[in-house]
Amino acid sequence: MTTRADPRLDLSCETSGLQPRPPGTFEVLAQAPGSPARAGRLWTAHGPIDTPCFMPVGTYGAVKGLDADDLREVGAQIILGNSYHLGHRPGAARVAALGGLHRMMAWDRPILTDSGGFQVFSLRGLQKIDDAGVSYQTHFDGSRHRMTPESVLATQAALGSDICMILDHCPPADAEPALIRAAVDRSTRWAEEAARRRGEILQPGQLCFGIVQGGTNVALRREHLKALADLPFEGLALGGLSVGEPIPEMHATMAAIGPEMPQDRPRYVMGIGTPHDLLAAVSSGIDMFDCVMPTRHARNGQLFTFSGRLNIRQARFRDDDAPIDPACRCRCCARYSRAYLRHLHEQNEPLYGRLATIHNLYFYQQWVGALRRALRSGRFEALRGEFSSIISTVYA
Amino acid sequence: MTTRADPRLDLSCETSGLQPRPPGTFEVLAQAPGSPARAGRLWTAHGPIDTPCFMPVGTYGAVKGLDADDLREVGAQIILGNSYHLGHRPGAARVAALGGLHRMMAWDRPILTDSGGFQVFSLRGLQKIDDAGVSYQTHFDGSRHRMTPESVLATQAALGSDICMILDHCPPADAEPALIRAAVDRSTRWAEEAARRRGEILQPGQLCFGIVQGGTNVALRREHLKALADLPFEGLALGGLSVGEPIPEMHATMAAIGPEMPQDRPRYVMGIGTPHDLLAAVSSGIDMFDCVMPTRHARNGQLFTFSGRLNIRQARFRDDDAPIDPACRCRCCARYSRAYLRHLHEQNEPLYGRLATIHNLYFYQQWVGALRRALRSGRFEALRGEFSSIISTVYA
Ligand SMILES: [Zn+2]
Ligand SMILES: [Zn+2]
Repeated sequence: MTTRADPRLDLSCETSGLQPRPPGTFEVLAQAPGSPARAGRLWTAHGPIDTPCFMPVGTYGAVKGLDADDLREVGAQIILGNSYHLGHRPGAARVAALGGLHRMMAWDRPILTDSGGFQVFSLRGLQKIDDAGVSYQTHFDGSRHRMTPESVLATQAALGSDICMILDHCPPADAEPALIRAAVDRSTRWAEEAARRRGEILQPGQLCFGIVQGGTNVALRREHLKALADLPFEGLALGGLSVGEPIPEMHATMAAIGPEMPQDRPRYVMGIGTPHDLLAAVSSGIDMFDCVMPTRHARNGQLFTFSGRLNIRQARFRDDDAPIDPACRCRCCARYSRAYLRHLHEQNEPLYGRLATIHNLYFYQQWVGALRRALRSGRFEALRGEFSSIISTVYA
Repeated sequence: MTTRADPRLDLSCETSGLQPRPPGTFEVLAQAPGSPARAGRLWTAHGPIDTPCFMPVGTYGAVKGLDADDLREVGAQIILGNSYHLGHRPGAARVAALGGLHRMMAWDRPILTDSGGFQVFSLRGLQKIDDAGVSYQTHFDGSRHRMTPESVLATQAALGSDICMILDHCPPADAEPALIRAAVDRSTRWAEEAARRRGEILQPGQLCFGIVQGGTNVALRREHLKALADLPFEGLALGGLSVGEPIPEMHATMAAIGPEMPQDRPRYVMGIGTPHDLLAAVSSGIDMFDCVMPTRHARNGQLFTFSGRLNIRQARFRDDDAPIDPACRCRCCARYSRAYLRHLHEQNEPLYGRLATIHNLYFYQQWVGALRRALRSGRFEALRGEFSSIISTVYA
C-alpha cells in the first residue's frame, strides 16, 4: 500500500488567477494524440470549470452532510442540483426569493441543474406523457403538476443555475425500439422548443445544454446527435446511459458517439459513474460527469482508494489505526482512523457520513484531477496504463 | 433584534500563551464581591480550562455531527465522553490500543469522562446494586458486566480521560428518604475506595473528581460534602441534580451547597442545564457544566439566541433570509439563512444537524464566555441584570 502522496493525484486548483472569459466559452487546452480524450475549460457566470470534471450531487441544495466549505475543500469546481426536488422542496420561487441556489447554500462556484425530467419519468404510474410535455403527481404529496420544455427552463432560471439542462424523454433501458424511436423524436421537438424559447426564459449568462437520447442504438444516437448539434446549445449531453443496460454496451455507445459530438463544446455524460466508467468516458472524449456513487457509497460504508475499495463495516477494521488511505490528503484521512470511522458507522453517528463522503469525493476529484493533468502533460496513455488494472478491476 | 455582535459575547480563547502548570492546579482568577461566583482556571494534562466552562457531550467519542475542528471552532475548551457507552462501544481496551480517546477523535484539548454509573443505574430491571458495586446487563446486547469503584477508574484510565469521575450511587429524584440516605452512605464508601486506589489505577496527570449526592436534602448534601471534601480529589461535583426535581429546589440546593464546597478546587454540577440554570449555578459558585441540551435541542429544531429561542420547524421561517441570530459569529450564522436551515431540517438533510449544533454550542460558549469575562472584569452583577430577563424567562 502506498503511504506517500502520489504527485499524479495532487489536487490543486488550476483555475485561480485566470482572466475571466464570457459564460459559455469552452477552451480545449490539450488533446491526447490519436485519441478523442481532451482537457478543457468551460467558463460560466460563476467562473471556470476544468475538464474532465466530476460534479457531486446535491439533490436538495446540499451534498449530503457537507457544507459549501467542505465542497471547496474536496476540490469540487461545480456541483449538481436536482430541479425536480428543489422545484418542489423548497420550491423554485422560494429559492429565487432567497437570492438563488448559490446564495441559499453559500456556494459561489458553478452549479448545473438537471431538468427534473428523469425523476418525473421514473414516477411509474404517476405520470402521463404527451407531445407537449408530461403531467405528473409528485412523490412528496401526490399534488399534480405539468412539466414542459419551457417550464423546466423557467425552474432552472429561478434556481439561478449556471448550466441548465433541457427537457428530454428518457425511456427505460429495456424499452421497445418503437418507444425509443418515439422518445428520440419527441426529445428533438422539445429540444427545438427549448432552443427557440431559452432567450426569453433564461437569464443572461445561464448556459443551456442539449441532451442526446437513443439508448445503446448507435445509429439512432447518431441521428439524434445530428439534430441536436445544429441547435444553439453551449454543450451537449448523452442521457439515458447507465440506466440498466450492460456496462460494455454503455462504454461502446460512448466510444462511438463521444468523438462525433461537437469538438468545440463540452460533452457531458449524465449519471455516471464508477472510476472505470469515467476513464472509459474520458477516453471517448467526454468532459463532464455527475453521479451519486461516491456520496451514496460513502454512507453505505464503501470507501474508495487507489489500492482498492474498503467496506468499513468489516470487523477487520475494528482495531485498524490507519486512515482510509494513508496516501490521501483529505480532512478525514489526515485525522481519523478506519477504526474510528467503523465505530462511528456502527453507532449511526452522523459524523461518519460527513467524513466518509469527504474522503470519497476527494478520491473522485483526485481521479479526474489526475486525468486532467495527464492530458495536459501528454501523459494520458501512460496514466491509463498505470492505473487501468486497479481502476478497471476494482471499480468496474 | 440585535444585528451587531455584542462585545460582551465575544468568544476569544483566553488560554493561549500561558505558562503550563501541573495537572490539577486550580487558580481562582476573580471572585465576585459579595457573591460565591468566581472565574478560575483548571490545568489538565491537555492544557487549561477557563471556568465557568461548559462541556459539550460526546457520548460515543463524537459530539453528534461535529468533528474536532468544529468543536475547536465553537470555542469548546473541554468535552465530555460517556464511559458506559465508550466502555462497551468500541470498548475501553480498543480505545486504549488506538492511542486513547484524544487520538481516536483527533481532539487535543481536555476530556472529562463520567463513570458510567448514571447510565447503569438508569437501566431499570437490568441492574442489581450491592455494597461493592453494581451488576448489570447492557442495553446493547444484554451482556452481563460489573461496575465497581475500581473498574470505572480503570475504564477511564484506558480511555485516557483528563478528568475521571468516581462511581457514585445516584438514586431517582422521587426516591424515599431511606434510599437516598443509603445511597449517600454507599457513595461515601465508594469514594473512599476510589481515593485509596486511584494512585494505582490512573495514569500520572489524570485528575479524579468526587461526587456529592443527597438529592435536594441540604442537610444530607452538607454531610456528604464534608465526607468527600476530606478525600484527595482535585475537584468535587454535585450529582443527582436535574433528575426530575422541581427547578427551584435544584437551584436552592446549588445555592446552599455551592458556596460550602472547597474554594480551592473546581466545582462541577453534572448534567445541567438551561442558560438560566448556568447563571444560577455560577451565582452559587459553580465552575463546570455539561448538558445535552444545546446539541439535542439543535437536532429537534430548537435554536438558542440572545433574543429568544426559535423553533426552526415553524412555517414562518420558510422565506426568512436572516441567519438564526444576526449578531452571532458562528459558521452557521455567517453563511446560512433560517429558510435554508428549515428546508434542510424538513428534508432530513444531515447537514442540518451539524449547522444547528454548531450554532447552539456557540451560543452556550458565548454565554459562559460572557460570564467569565464579566467575573474577571468585576461586572458580574451588572451582566446578571442585563441578561437576566431574557435568560430567566426564555430559558427557564
Ligand atoms: Zn481521504
Ligand atoms: Zn450562530
